[in-house]
Amino acid sequence: MSRSIDLNSDLGESFGPWNMGDDASMLSIVSSANIACGGHASDPETMFETLQLAKENGVTIGAHPGYNDREGFGRRIIPMTPPEIGRMVTAQIGALQALATLAGTEVSYVKPHGALGNLAAADRDVADAVVDAVRRLDTRLSILAISGMQLEHAARDAGVPVYSEIFADRGYLSSGQLVPRGQDGAMIHDPDKAADRLLAFLDSGLMPVIDGDPIELNAQSICVHGDSDGAVAMARTIRKRLTDASVTINGFIAR
Amino acid sequence: MSRSIDLNSDLGESFGPWNMGDDASMLSIVSSANIACGGHASDPETMFETLQLAKENGVTIGAHPGYNDREGFGRRIIPMTPPEIGRMVTAQIGALQALATLAGTEVSYVKPHGALGNLAAADRDVADAVVDAVRRLDTRLSILAISGMQLEHAARDAGVPVYSEIFADRGYLSSGQLVPRGQDGAMIHDPDKAADRLLAFLDSGLMPVIDGDPIELNAQSICVHGDSDGAVAMARTIRKRLTDASVTINGFIAR
Amino acid sequence: MSRSIDLNSDLGESFGPWNMGDDASMLSIVSSANIACGGHASDPETMFETLQLAKENGVTIGAHPGYNDREGFGRRIIPMTPPEIGRMVTAQIGALQALATLAGTEVSYVKPHGALGNLAAADRDVADAVVDAVRRLDTRLSILAISGMQLEHAARDAGVPVYSEIFADRGYLSSGQLVPRGQDGAMIHDPDKAADRLLAFLDSGLMPVIDGDPIELNAQSICVHGDSDGAVAMARTIRKRLTDASVTINGFIAR
Amino acid sequence: MSRSIDLNSDLGESFGPWNMGDDASMLSIVSSANIACGGHASDPETMFETLQLAKENGVTIGAHPGYNDREGFGRRIIPMTPPEIGRMVTAQIGALQALATLAGTEVSYVKPHGALGNLAAADRDVADAVVDAVRRLDTRLSILAISGMQLEHAARDAGVPVYSEIFADRGYLSSGQLVPRGQDGAMIHDPDKAADRLLAFLDSGLMPVIDGDPIELNAQSICVHGDSDGAVAMARTIRKRLTDASVTINGFIAR
Repeated sequence: MSRSIDLNSDLGESFGPWNMGDDASMLSIVSSANIACGGHASDPETMFETLQLAKENGVTIGAHPGYNDREGFGRRIIPMTPPEIGRMVTAQIGALQALATLAGTEVSYVKPHGALGNLAAADRDVADAVVDAVRRLDTRLSILAISGMQLEHAARDAGVPVYSEIFADRGYLSSGQLVPRGQDGAMIHDPDKAADRLLAFLDSGLMPVIDGDPIELNAQSICVHGDSDGAVAMARTIRKRLTDASVTINGFIAR
Repeated sequence: MSRSIDLNSDLGESFGPWNMGDDASMLSIVSSANIACGGHASDPETMFETLQLAKENGVTIGAHPGYNDREGFGRRIIPMTPPEIGRMVTAQIGALQALATLAGTEVSYVKPHGALGNLAAADRDVADAVVDAVRRLDTRLSILAISGMQLEHAARDAGVPVYSEIFADRGYLSSGQLVPRGQDGAMIHDPDKAADRLLAFLDSGLMPVIDGDPIELNAQSICVHGDSDGAVAMARTIRKRLTDASVTINGFIAR
Repeated sequence: MSRSIDLNSDLGESFGPWNMGDDASMLSIVSSANIACGGHASDPETMFETLQLAKENGVTIGAHPGYNDREGFGRRIIPMTPPEIGRMVTAQIGALQALATLAGTEVSYVKPHGALGNLAAADRDVADAVVDAVRRLDTRLSILAISGMQLEHAARDAGVPVYSEIFADRGYLSSGQLVPRGQDGAMIHDPDKAADRLLAFLDSGLMPVIDGDPIELNAQSICVHGDSDGAVAMARTIRKRLTDASVTINGFIAR
Repeated sequence: MSRSIDLNSDLGESFGPWNMGDDASMLSIVSSANIACGGHASDPETMFETLQLAKENGVTIGAHPGYNDREGFGRRIIPMTPPEIGRMVTAQIGALQALATLAGTEVSYVKPHGALGNLAAADRDVADAVVDAVRRLDTRLSILAISGMQLEHAARDAGVPVYSEIFADRGYLSSGQLVPRGQDGAMIHDPDKAADRLLAFLDSGLMPVIDGDPIELNAQSICVHGDSDGAVAMARTIRKRLTDASVTINGFIAR
């Protein structure tokens, strides 16, 4: 039996003189790139370079909109109404789409970043606002959502193509939620342990949790982090272990 | 013989809590709106509201990209290479296009703002970079350029549809250049004098200058300022005087 | 019996090309100016001009720090720890102090703006962080706080000189809280009604409320808004009505 | 005969989530730290941490103001009048001074950054504006200037204490100017060659140039870069070679 899954990572998060992560290495490993759109990170130069590099590597391109808060890197919830969020997200996706056209490629999906991603996972009104903005902007866009959360439900209900992701290096609870950062088991630092867990999930469809029996999760993609120490090593090990186990790494959206 | 011309104005230049100009009044007067794109001014809320208002008034929509310099309102030249300018302009147009889609309308043309507009008028490399970005982004976009300057030439040479504007309230020199601000004759403050001059131009195709015989100028549009004291009164008088003289006010691009 | 009170207003809230309020008029009416510090509003040019104008008018100068969120005008709570708030406030006060020195004047007090002001009124940890920052920065600085709230208590407990303000145009509840915006009685739009209430308070020390008997409030200053329509007329009427009733308008801090 | 010189470096140039350079290592090597003030780089958190670290290492602290242009890292000339530059610099120094007070230390000198530093070296009006702002702000502040250029002259003429720096890794011309970047000899990449040249200069007072005989230069400080690859190794080698040759590394201003 042949199996296939996507690897995605947040990329293009440099800004002006400041570099973040090793995008060139990550783009040789992942199959989908969530590219920052000038909100929580990035600028036109960074977006364009990352788009070009993704294209050269045959990596599927997603827009990665976040709060307009570079100082907080989009990790702080900025109080906004859902319609305001929809318009902010629209402007950011539009900027990336235009630069993708300039780079001779295109944006295939949208994945909200950081605090916005968490809010869209937890709050149905915000999820609906993001989905509605994406649907009205361009019917060819899909959504990449955290498995089992509100954004996934909202997209499905609106008829917008939606794919689900699990996290390579984050522990899960029986509830399907991530173990909160700071608690034991929140992070998986050992690449081989992360790969073991992913292979177990791919074999069974069941994700191990820290507080009970493995749970069912739906996933077409695995999120690997791009900006932490050891990110490239983690991503490389996971890719190798998966392909060694005859899992094909493929963008969830064909390019 | 029926005559027709466009009236355009820079609009959507508010930002966050700060208002600029009386966009609602101006949009009842002009036929084309150059809408700021979040660079020198505006934000997603302002862009969306202005786009909606333009649509309701049947006003043709242009993107009005400028330097990413709100503090200087895009009136300062920020040193950038022509390709960097092309990418900055692309990102801004893309943001406005996306919000236009959300508002159920579309962007028809591009007119660079302030210091970027002046540089694109004077420097062929910058003009080419702007034209190239517009052409690669969307072949349905036209350019609105200062009559007789480099941006007009660059667009024509590249086969991008280009329309030319003259200024309602600025004096001209025999060279075809504007009288520099601060010199006698730079500004026309009396709405009726401005209207007299425009009607003379529309009758003859010749523009009065302050240092010699009237000169030939090509123009499909008249730029009226939207953000100064008396802007609405000036625009209203010009519109009335033109229509009283059987000049039709029409967007240079049919909507 | 002679009575005296301060009138304060938020000023210096323009930014780059965007004007807010009529600072020149307001500075001829108030006795204390809360000047924005480049966080929620303002820039070095605006700060310097406002400082000069305050000096010329003999108006006491306060620093008015707010969240670094121009787009939201400091009206949105940006998630930050209390120590982060202390450092943000310190940097902003320092910038204003330096420009005050350049303008030949000085900053006498600190009043937090908008969402930060509301949070410092409601949350003792935030109040303590603001007070601690002010105390460590410059022992000559006082604090201007909303009457009866946490910032006032925190300053008093820390031994930092603190003065209390009431609002000219906002209704009060028996709890001492303001009537929330949007509810009946939240805003007082009629300048004479606002003046009547302030005179009643100055006579009795008791503030009328919308849901019971007048309450005791401690106040050395009355806050008049500077940025709304009719702001100057409201401030002018209040000043006139107070001085007609032999109330002296004096900065709570002698200059 | 004992000799002494200062080593200075640009530090505190991180921003929000983005790190720049290895400040902890550099602060164990240099004797003076030019700390960014929130203009071209930094934020209150970065400023405060860098100030604390400088204090712990006994490193003299300088303010390093630059254009308010994070995207361009202060390396682009933003058109401003000299008085506007003076006020921008004042606000930035004030912010750093306030945070230094919070950190229990103080700012001793000012060194303009990047494009502003180059302009203040070349343009006497800008140099005068910077010197005037520093002098009016705080008479205890010195200036650190590029040896032989306009800022040094302006400070000397105004009676502001001024110290001069040479560059550890940049080639010189007979004119006293640096070899422009991009030309042969502009950069010295070999730490030992850089150290050889500095020792030759400290022995003779004469700086080798690439186009003639060594020239006289006045210098109390050597600038080592903090943000390039190999910056720490270069700084460490220079410090070791100097101290091995009995040169004492001392801040030009006693703390």
